[in-house]
Amino acid sequence: MQNIKWSKTEKKIARQAFDKAHEREMKHIENEVREILDKSEDVWSVWHIHDFLTKKRKETDQKYDYRYSVLITVFSRLCAEGWLLLEDLKGLDEDKIERIQTISKMIYE
Amino acid sequence: MQNIKWSKTEKKIARQAFDKAHEREMKHIENEVREILDKSEDVWSVWHIHDFLTKKRKETDQKYDYRYSVLITVFSRLCAEGWLLLEDLKGLDEDKIERIQTISKMIYE
Repeated sequence: MQNIKWSKTEKKIARQAFDKAHEREMKHIENEVREILDKSEDVWSVWHIHDFLTKKRKETDQKYDYRYSVLITVFSRLCAEGWLLLEDLKGLDEDKIERIQTISKMIYE
Repeated sequence: MQNIKWSKTEKKIARQAFDKAHEREMKHIENEVREILDKSEDVWSVWHIHDFLTKKRKETDQKYDYRYSVLITVFSRLCAEGWLLLEDLKGLDEDKIERIQTISKMIYE
């Protein structure tokens, strides 16, 4: 998949989709932080937040890798995890969307 | 100050004062986290929270050192920073309180 070509228009769509997915996941992380705070019964829960964010930062740093050579796999994972929707990819070449759907299903199952 | 003796009663008072100061500072850290969240204008502020907590965790881990050999210095710093109040130390030997006040003022100035 390293040799897949991305047109100028596709690159624009891909970047927007990538950023949208990233923001969705970040929003979810933010909500989880709020939930830990709201449910906390003592002051030590801030360290739970710290542990949680340390894990998430490492995870998202690895996951959100915007290199065209790995983008199909990245998008497939984001679809499988629900951060990216197929409608976000509208405008990409059909072959790319099919690959993403196929790999995404394989990850999901 | 390593040879300062602590009676059983003083140890109890010291432990309670130490825990109270620690909880006060933790509450303050928790409030700062809430403030960052409330003021945040985008989802990336969770990484500001992460950076902030990483710094605070390291700082408090070093600061809250409950060894009798260093406790006068620890209490002096906590007083200077406002986490410990002199009334929390009520019941300790006068000499200890004086030392704490003197060192605290030196730190504060």
